[in-house]
Amino acid sequence: MKIERAKGTRDFLPKEALARQSMTDKLRKVFEKYGFSPTETPILERYETLASKYAGGSEILKETFKLKDQGDRELGLRYDLTVPLCRVISSNPQLKMPFKRYQMERVFRDGPISAGRYREFYQCDVDIIGCKNMTADAELLALTKDVFKELKLKVNIKANNIKILYSILEYAGIKENKESVLLSLDKFEKIGEKGVIEELKQKKIPEDSIKKLLTAIGTKGSNEDKIKKLDKLLQNKEGLEEMKQLIKYSKDFNADFELDLGLARGLSYYTGTVFEVKLKEGKITSSVAGGGRYDKIIGQFIESKQEYPAVGISFGIDRIYDTTTLENRQTISDVFVIPINTLSKSIKIVQKLRAEGIKAEIDLLGRNIGKNLDYANTQGIPFVIFAGEKELKAKKLKLKDMKSGKEQLSDLDSIIKTIKKSLTYSP
Amino acid sequence: MKIERAKGTRDFLPKEALARQSMTDKLRKVFEKYGFSPTETPILERYETLASKYAGGSEILKETFKLKDQGDRELGLRYDLTVPLCRVISSNPQLKMPFKRYQMERVFRDGPISAGRYREFYQCDVDIIGCKNMTADAELLALTKDVFKELKLKVNIKANNIKILYSILEYAGIKENKESVLLSLDKFEKIGEKGVIEELKQKKIPEDSIKKLLTAIGTKGSNEDKIKKLDKLLQNKEGLEEMKQLIKYSKDFNADFELDLGLARGLSYYTGTVFEVKLKEGKITSSVAGGGRYDKIIGQFIESKQEYPAVGISFGIDRIYDTTTLENRQTISDVFVIPINTLSKSIKIVQKLRAEGIKAEIDLLGRNIGKNLDYANTQGIPFVIFAGEKELKAKKLKLKDMKSGKEQLSDLDSIIKTIKKSLTYSP
Repeated sequence: MKIERAKGTRDFLPKEALARQSMTDKLRKVFEKYGFSPTETPILERYETLASKYAGGSEILKETFKLKDQGDRELGLRYDLTVPLCRVISSNPQLKMPFKRYQMERVFRDGPISAGRYREFYQCDVDIIGCKNMTADAELLALTKDVFKELKLKVNIKANNIKILYSILEYAGIKENKESVLLSLDKFEKIGEKGVIEELKQKKIPEDSIKKLLTAIGTKGSNEDKIKKLDKLLQNKEGLEEMKQLIKYSKDFNADFELDLGLARGLSYYTGTVFEVKLKEGKITSSVAGGGRYDKIIGQFIESKQEYPAVGISFGIDRIYDTTTLENRQTISDVFVIPINTLSKSIKIVQKLRAEGIKAEIDLLGRNIGKNLDYANTQGIPFVIFAGEKELKAKKLKLKDMKSGKEQLSDLDSIIKTIKKSLTYSP
Repeated sequence: MKIERAKGTRDFLPKEALARQSMTDKLRKVFEKYGFSPTETPILERYETLASKYAGGSEILKETFKLKDQGDRELGLRYDLTVPLCRVISSNPQLKMPFKRYQMERVFRDGPISAGRYREFYQCDVDIIGCKNMTADAELLALTKDVFKELKLKVNIKANNIKILYSILEYAGIKENKESVLLSLDKFEKIGEKGVIEELKQKKIPEDSIKKLLTAIGTKGSNEDKIKKLDKLLQNKEGLEEMKQLIKYSKDFNADFELDLGLARGLSYYTGTVFEVKLKEGKITSSVAGGGRYDKIIGQFIESKQEYPAVGISFGIDRIYDTTTLENRQTISDVFVIPINTLSKSIKIVQKLRAEGIKAEIDLLGRNIGKNLDYANTQGIPFVIFAGEKELKAKKLKLKDMKSGKEQLSDLDSIIKTIKKSLTYSP
């Protein structure tokens, strides 16, 4: 019998898990600074929740893992974090608005597997529920800027407003198949202007309309310029007004974004602002974050149909992880203590290091110095402490910096200082 | 349509999620100080891995959620973290030993539901693979002591060695049904001495053997006393030798435990040391952590049958969580900024607080002062900042400590200092 992993799943051994943890710690830090609280929901959901009309739709259900419990109830593994959020809001009327939360958890899709596509993967959603004002959208843009700054990744942050797009469609005289037209527009980067025109023609959009549409969307200039120019063309100004507010508040938040009038985002549930974040450089050109307003969704899960305006952004942490260069660290330990016939005393030393908050390991196997050094080296542990009998009698220890090769013979307190200074972590 | 959660599952809204996060952060801190690295494995495993002979056995399979993927492959949701660990070790021969890892993740069991029993719950395992020495077992005892110290929970830590138990069985002349006898012994606390005797009689153990068995197990005194007394009785000394080592190293690690000769632990896969941790007080009398040596399991997953000695401890984080008193915190935010006709400037203030690492929120809804104060109060946010026009012109703000009611009118830098001092968190 050959023991194998399930298809489309991954293990994260220490090297990978440490890199992921470093990334998710950074995200969490920024989310919490912005006053977003953690939330968790179960992986198992009732299938009827996942299949409800206003959830992901029939396409996603084809990729939903289905199962049953003892009581023959139909269950599914969640395919996103939005449907569970809607369930949570609808069944917890006591929650105070605005409800600001983040969730970094796994979702499951039984789809085709390719590079970077898994059946069990992470989603990372940050949402503000209960706020119609563009202050919320602007705050998410500021948070997004801070997230990528913290991750030291250069990105382009783009935004648009679905209401502007519908207003442009109106201006272009397009009255039918509006969603389908938006889907074509969204392919601009993939298939180019020619491709979009071709698709729109196939969708029976008159040439004049196509021209007006593409001219409006191609409006050039600063964000403010674009708004001014469109203001003259468009009848329905609601989207433009929201965008003006977003631009204004974003400046207050010191958040930058580019108004990309062609940005439509595939999902039909967006009702206003949409966001998209792409890396400026590197191998991954696809988006690393995206989101928008979905003011109409949550209410559909509630009998009273009470409206819950909502805006959220989703960070592609699997994609972000794929951009990180892994360090040669096979373990979290910062120090490895090698006892040289001094096991009892060395154990006390490693316990002292740990009490100081230093991540420390000690030879448990009773190996010789050479083997221990080799282990510390292949594991990528930055420091080694040699605890020799003679040295210990003089209350001294030898510290070796494994990168520089530098050695220091001193008392434990000095050694602790050197290690803490070098690692500059907050224990 | 009524939207419901799946049976046996839970949501963690901010109040609960914050308490859990505070608990898991403490565990993680201790694990990492001891040089245990994080690992993650998938929730979806191939069913044949979960059902393999040396995994949990047929009982657990009755509670295993089964499903299929697109390719009609049989899958299961993992019911523990040990079987996936065995799969990981067996399929990653490059891993250096000792392999020290922790994993805090969800597992699934389709069993009966009662208070504190869920179908989707957490396990938290800490393991050392590749070390036969009792240094490893002692290190886990030290880690366990530190974990409960960090959690501020008073516990009794008990240990025993399965080899001592088998040696006692030998001394008592019990040659058959040994595992079954150990299972009866394990019920001592539940059914008392009389109950155990009754069960053993039913299992056809001669009265003389029962007497010898219970006398040996009832040996009184300090850990050292017990060892000395048993040394005179027992033929096979292997377990006693290991226990002597464990006592010695535990002293070096400053880890205390009580040698409980009756401790057997239900699982038949333990091969040496066993641990059990119970709360000293409080409503939950069942164990909050437990584990032991399982030297024979991992090898069974490997074709070469290479032996991988292993010792681990599992923390019952759902049970530990149930003992915590929840604070009245509905959000992670430490400060709430109330703009009084000063939105633009207030946004800059909240961004300054965040840049200082303070978890800060600002009114996004444009509510009046009363409603904002009410929100901050019901959410349990410790500080409120009032940003009034007149005050801002004089470069001042009003800070209100929501617990004491104390107010301070000063510049932003002083306010930041006050908040940081009061929260004493490391941003």
